[in-house]
Amino acid sequence: MSQLDFKVPSLGECEIDSPLSHAEFVDEDNRISYFLKHRDIESCLEQGLPLPTFEPAGPRRRIFHDPARTRAAIVSCGGLCPGINDVIRSLVNTLWHRYRVGTIYGIRYGYRGLVAKYGLPPLHLDPDVVDYIHEHGGSILGSSRGQQSNEEILATISRMKINLLFTIGGDGTQRATSEIAGLARERNLPLSVIGIPKTIDNDLNFMDRTFGFESAIYAAGPVISSAHMEAKGVHNGIGLVKLMGRESGFIAASACLANSVANFCLIPEVEFSLDGENGLLPAIKRRLAIKNHAVIVVAEGAGQGLFEQTGTSRDASGNIVFSDIGLLLKDRIGGYLSRQRIEHSIKYLDPSYIIRSVPAYGTDAVYCLHLAENAVHAAMAGKSGMVIAHWHGNFIHVPVSLAVRERRRIDPKNQLWQSVLGATRQNDYFYARRSEGEGGD
Amino acid sequence: MSQLDFKVPSLGECEIDSPLSHAEFVDEDNRISYFLKHRDIESCLEQGLPLPTFEPAGPRRRIFHDPARTRAAIVSCGGLCPGINDVIRSLVNTLWHRYRVGTIYGIRYGYRGLVAKYGLPPLHLDPDVVDYIHEHGGSILGSSRGQQSNEEILATISRMKINLLFTIGGDGTQRATSEIAGLARERNLPLSVIGIPKTIDNDLNFMDRTFGFESAIYAAGPVISSAHMEAKGVHNGIGLVKLMGRESGFIAASACLANSVANFCLIPEVEFSLDGENGLLPAIKRRLAIKNHAVIVVAEGAGQGLFEQTGTSRDASGNIVFSDIGLLLKDRIGGYLSRQRIEHSIKYLDPSYIIRSVPAYGTDAVYCLHLAENAVHAAMAGKSGMVIAHWHGNFIHVPVSLAVRERRRIDPKNQLWQSVLGATRQNDYFYARRSEGEGGD
Amino acid sequence: MSQLDFKVPSLGECEIDSPLSHAEFVDEDNRISYFLKHRDIESCLEQGLPLPTFEPAGPRRRIFHDPARTRAAIVSCGGLCPGINDVIRSLVNTLWHRYRVGTIYGIRYGYRGLVAKYGLPPLHLDPDVVDYIHEHGGSILGSSRGQQSNEEILATISRMKINLLFTIGGDGTQRATSEIAGLARERNLPLSVIGIPKTIDNDLNFMDRTFGFESAIYAAGPVISSAHMEAKGVHNGIGLVKLMGRESGFIAASACLANSVANFCLIPEVEFSLDGENGLLPAIKRRLAIKNHAVIVVAEGAGQGLFEQTGTSRDASGNIVFSDIGLLLKDRIGGYLSRQRIEHSIKYLDPSYIIRSVPAYGTDAVYCLHLAENAVHAAMAGKSGMVIAHWHGNFIHVPVSLAVRERRRIDPKNQLWQSVLGATRQNDYFYARRSEGEGGD
Amino acid sequence: MSQLDFKVPSLGECEIDSPLSHAEFVDEDNRISYFLKHRDIESCLEQGLPLPTFEPAGPRRRIFHDPARTRAAIVSCGGLCPGINDVIRSLVNTLWHRYRVGTIYGIRYGYRGLVAKYGLPPLHLDPDVVDYIHEHGGSILGSSRGQQSNEEILATISRMKINLLFTIGGDGTQRATSEIAGLARERNLPLSVIGIPKTIDNDLNFMDRTFGFESAIYAAGPVISSAHMEAKGVHNGIGLVKLMGRESGFIAASACLANSVANFCLIPEVEFSLDGENGLLPAIKRRLAIKNHAVIVVAEGAGQGLFEQTGTSRDASGNIVFSDIGLLLKDRIGGYLSRQRIEHSIKYLDPSYIIRSVPAYGTDAVYCLHLAENAVHAAMAGKSGMVIAHWHGNFIHVPVSLAVRERRRIDPKNQLWQSVLGATRQNDYFYARRSEGEGGD
Repeated sequence: MSQLDFKVPSLGECEIDSPLSHAEFVDEDNRISYFLKHRDIESCLEQGLPLPTFEPAGPRRRIFHDPARTRAAIVSCGGLCPGINDVIRSLVNTLWHRYRVGTIYGIRYGYRGLVAKYGLPPLHLDPDVVDYIHEHGGSILGSSRGQQSNEEILATISRMKINLLFTIGGDGTQRATSEIAGLARERNLPLSVIGIPKTIDNDLNFMDRTFGFESAIYAAGPVISSAHMEAKGVHNGIGLVKLMGRESGFIAASACLANSVANFCLIPEVEFSLDGENGLLPAIKRRLAIKNHAVIVVAEGAGQGLFEQTGTSRDASGNIVFSDIGLLLKDRIGGYLSRQRIEHSIKYLDPSYIIRSVPAYGTDAVYCLHLAENAVHAAMAGKSGMVIAHWHGNFIHVPVSLAVRERRRIDPKNQLWQSVLGATRQNDYFYARRSEGEGGD
Repeated sequence: MSQLDFKVPSLGECEIDSPLSHAEFVDEDNRISYFLKHRDIESCLEQGLPLPTFEPAGPRRRIFHDPARTRAAIVSCGGLCPGINDVIRSLVNTLWHRYRVGTIYGIRYGYRGLVAKYGLPPLHLDPDVVDYIHEHGGSILGSSRGQQSNEEILATISRMKINLLFTIGGDGTQRATSEIAGLARERNLPLSVIGIPKTIDNDLNFMDRTFGFESAIYAAGPVISSAHMEAKGVHNGIGLVKLMGRESGFIAASACLANSVANFCLIPEVEFSLDGENGLLPAIKRRLAIKNHAVIVVAEGAGQGLFEQTGTSRDASGNIVFSDIGLLLKDRIGGYLSRQRIEHSIKYLDPSYIIRSVPAYGTDAVYCLHLAENAVHAAMAGKSGMVIAHWHGNFIHVPVSLAVRERRRIDPKNQLWQSVLGATRQNDYFYARRSEGEGGD
Repeated sequence: MSQLDFKVPSLGECEIDSPLSHAEFVDEDNRISYFLKHRDIESCLEQGLPLPTFEPAGPRRRIFHDPARTRAAIVSCGGLCPGINDVIRSLVNTLWHRYRVGTIYGIRYGYRGLVAKYGLPPLHLDPDVVDYIHEHGGSILGSSRGQQSNEEILATISRMKINLLFTIGGDGTQRATSEIAGLARERNLPLSVIGIPKTIDNDLNFMDRTFGFESAIYAAGPVISSAHMEAKGVHNGIGLVKLMGRESGFIAASACLANSVANFCLIPEVEFSLDGENGLLPAIKRRLAIKNHAVIVVAEGAGQGLFEQTGTSRDASGNIVFSDIGLLLKDRIGGYLSRQRIEHSIKYLDPSYIIRSVPAYGTDAVYCLHLAENAVHAAMAGKSGMVIAHWHGNFIHVPVSLAVRERRRIDPKNQLWQSVLGATRQNDYFYARRSEGEGGD
Repeated sequence: MSQLDFKVPSLGECEIDSPLSHAEFVDEDNRISYFLKHRDIESCLEQGLPLPTFEPAGPRRRIFHDPARTRAAIVSCGGLCPGINDVIRSLVNTLWHRYRVGTIYGIRYGYRGLVAKYGLPPLHLDPDVVDYIHEHGGSILGSSRGQQSNEEILATISRMKINLLFTIGGDGTQRATSEIAGLARERNLPLSVIGIPKTIDNDLNFMDRTFGFESAIYAAGPVISSAHMEAKGVHNGIGLVKLMGRESGFIAASACLANSVANFCLIPEVEFSLDGENGLLPAIKRRLAIKNHAVIVVAEGAGQGLFEQTGTSRDASGNIVFSDIGLLLKDRIGGYLSRQRIEHSIKYLDPSYIIRSVPAYGTDAVYCLHLAENAVHAAMAGKSGMVIAHWHGNFIHVPVSLAVRERRRIDPKNQLWQSVLGATRQNDYFYARRSEGEGGD
């Protein structure tokens, strides 16, 4: 990891006393180890290399921006995710109550709201405006996809005299975070751009978990139960549920563990074939022969290799538009079983919009709140071009370049996937190992 | 109504004392008036006609079947609906604990379980088996669609020496209820066949409400909220939700009233066109121009006239397979707005499987319990070929022929639909009456 | 019933055309029969008496108040109940959108807000203010208990030039409704006072159900489950839940049926003793001997005869302050079992505040909406001193005097209580009839 | 930390090949660092001390117990907590399906079930028995408090030929875990005793979080909302909620952050006085003067110093029985405000039984599953006298002696408490800093 740059970009010296009085200020130099396993630590030391470490998040004793002259803006981009409004609310409350920042703009519909031609005036945010917004899913600011001109964005920011820009969004959003921060630095604009990473898929680097993931797992539970009920409701019923997860299967895997009625969990990290002795189709046939029903959970990014020509069309955010694996499975399973003259009924559930638009609950809401607080602390301290991350239970600062370098994925050898195999027992069906009459449902 | 036959078929004289001790036995002769409005009553009397009345449901002092020799069976047919397991559970508990009937079969997968060739052995039900089944949606018995030979069904019933058959299902199921009852009567078999009407659409004749409807409305609420959040999440976002309701809009209308964020409610009883000055497409355009987002709730049976050739294909239950109005609307709205160069984003939610598979809650569960109790009372009293219905708040007996005669539908002049128009204010968009800048969301 | 006065007081002739265009106007003369059983109807006719009938609710073709000059006020009184905000919201929307009434006051903290000395200025309500209030329980207006001077109230109403007063509250509130209406009539003030009856106990006369009841039953479900889990969690565990129900056991009974784990349901309508052969204490001992745990649901008004000296203290609303039957049972059960040297553990749950403060859901919310719409229709038509009621499934007008005449109570001979006995099987314990080893939980 | 013993007791050499085939076996020697901050690491190294490290949890390539001869038992002790059944279920499934252990006893009612004189025969557990138990709160095994004779427990274990004992419980339970393990070692019994720490208070050492905590926070949300609605429902209404937390305020603090309507959060770690200028009572008075309502959340262990004579009575588990701080606050606040002639209304909510008996949801359920899997891996590998813990996101083995050494508590200087102060803004009331008219609710 020595080639990685853990250094967080900053606008300059902090010369103003923080208005925070009661908090324990963070010692920025007391950094958080990247490594946790003692062999990694020892190997690093043996090679005479410095331990790679992260800058801790939290309030600084001295800050860069003068609260009295600070104007903040918040923008949310990309698809919905539980907790966006919690993040917005906590950003506003922390700026307003703790730093006494009195001007906070809510940018409408993503980066578009910062591009003059769209004519989207910002909202004026204060604690009263955001008092109850966390009780709803979605984003009170709205969102959009697609790249905008960073030049135009910076022009708007300059015109509005914004010093702090908080960007809630995924990879693409955070790349813009970095670019806008860089552009501002080039022009000596005192602008802190701080990202709060948003990906419901929970697959961000240096993030133990991303906000909204926990609530998504909760929301997926009843849907999988529904698929189970539909599957058991008819002879040879099949409940097929597509969940979020473009490049990683964290949602599908966790949802299968939380609601243990799934018999097959299909994720992008683990390839599978449809046909052939160890293919999915004969595996489903075996399952039906024993139990007369089956529940399949598939991540949207799974099995993309099954499409003869994977489309390379992209959406406005630059994400590859996936072919619908759920529909493909529905067709192929149905065709296979019909050819085998096995009467059956497939119920396909596609609940993504229902799941991603719920409010954040409980500890997930608390997590959103802490992310936003730390984003404000970072911004006031003059950091720019970084995201708030969470590593081994600690909030840290990570340069955007590091955060978007690659995605976190499930390692099939690790406990998460092994537990899924244990809970679904799907390999018994894939590899025809289960003896008839055995227990379980 | 004089041409309607309100007389409930019966197997014969009740000569056995009921084992129920504490209950207030119902006086079968104290019937329930069909009419409630005094003008209807007076008009009837003025014409010298007898008041049309229903037989009241409830326990009889004397019963037909000897509990010690009685064997019961329960079958559930058609699609899932909240509360089926509550009904099954209450049938079992009432038979077992109150009448001391010790043999209760749970027939698997609908009427198929009564046809020998399918080889589906029944479950043996008792209070322990059904103790917690109401906590799950679906049906522990499973279900199936499609007609089976009544001869073969009766042969199985004879072989199993079943005296009481409880059929949980919709129109088709209840027609079979009547036919099986008739066939048994022809052959002097002492078989009581009692239907518990099931239609999540809430559109059964002589039923103030059908079981599961209440829970379906509860379950639809969060889905419409999700559509609202998705719609507001982007500029000119449209959340489109398809709900159940093949021939009636009760679910769509009630769900719109319960969760008042829908801007358009489209039901089978009220026709609409897509194009033209007062069509849906320009109405949506007007809505977007004012509010930048729209939520549309459409019953699955709405707008069937929009399909150039309404397919007449039918499913195994004989129901007409509807073309998917949701997909049609999604395509047509998208095409229209694109041609008008209005950037937009449509999110289509199709939550039927999620809604119909939830458990029944609260007062809906209580309703299921009462329906089943009354079905047992009717069966023990030797009624056959009837369903338990609910009229002006009273449980009654209705001959199958009357119950399946026609469907209940929303009268657009009545309060339910008028309230929907008030809540959605959709006619302001259809007829371009709303002035810009007015309140509401 | 001939001595009952079903005539609804009215301010005078309706001479203004209703601004409602699409609605089906109600024919006020087509009244709703009080009787539904044909024997009651026939007996009435045989005696040559007119059928007692209610005035139907709904929009009138001609109205009394001129919308352009109409000023409305809404007041909520007494304890919380699910749905108050739904009622307020629907009152505002119906007044504003359908009748174009532009001045609507929200009176703060019950009738106090209409008494000058408290200095509580009203809120100004419009559709934007109330847009999301139904998502929260409670009342945005606040409430209070206790009688205020009707003279002072009327003085405030005159000063504010209010023509329509909507009162959401229970018996005491509605008595004031009637008195204020009477006082206004004496002084020729054109004031319509319309009550929307509120009692979570569901025990109002001429009300099939009261708003909020359905949501209360839903909210009680998880609490009874908790008591069950606590009871089963230890050897001889006892879960004791006190639910609302001062003079009637509708909530306790329905909650026991909806969540069928209660072994004892105790209500005001059915007396019980603690000691003696058929007392509750030995019954609990029998239950524990067989099943090692017990769940008891008790209505707050049950067993008041057990207190040696029933206090006659009253709260500010004039309601008798009940001694806490839950605490008494906890003490007495604990003492009895200890004396019998039966180790045990009692967990007492008192969830009233948690249940009554939830929002109204689903069909309950729809019911609130319809109640409020009909209240507005009645008010605009110049009715005064009446409440909106619901009889055999129809919304009707009932004079306050009739509505508060007596309370609805459970008839122990009817299906509701008989079903509770069937579900709890408590008489087996009270009367030592259950044989050991039998099924059920 | 060098004086701490991180070494996990073990029965001896592992000489049997694990039957697990697909899993990635853990390298036991690749330990997890106790320290994460680089200064701690460096300081340790500079002193020439070895880094303190934990043994990683997970499946071992070679195991100690021969699955074919292994008999397991599971016991749950102490109060209820969400997720106990998930843990039991995952223990059974992992033993049965992955290690093929065919004899698994469920011990009834805590350690009592292992003491002959109580005569409590164990349940026989297999995957079918536990298939749906996680859908309910509580423990299917039941629980008990109080110490039993370890000698007698070991006698039963010997008689039943149990090799693996899984103990789900808190401090007291785990001390017994250690003692039983020690006693067995003395006698050369091949018994692995593995603890799964249970404390809903989330205050266990070396546990980032304890199971059930997440679900408890979710369940507390609606209760605090209820208190808020009750408080706002009357003039000067006060909603007072007591939550779990005997020695730590994690639940109270997190619940206040998740549902941000609390104005005061009182926890054991932060002392407060009632009277005096900066006391709670005048602070509440100030709050009421500005906002007319207040919501107070208090942990059960807070303010124990306010009781003149803190009782030292203990419950059967040896826990000090706390005086009820909720009742004390209710009395003292009421008395104070009455003396000040401030009309008010206090609603006291004590939801502990309701919260702790819910099922575990979503990611909390996944966490339970992983804890149990790792407990089985540890047991099969011959560990004994240890608990499964979770440190910086990793499952680890911790000797019981270390785990029960002290409790984790909130550090008032850290982000959690600082966020609570920011969310409640309670110091503005304690220290009279808030100016009237400011925003927020």
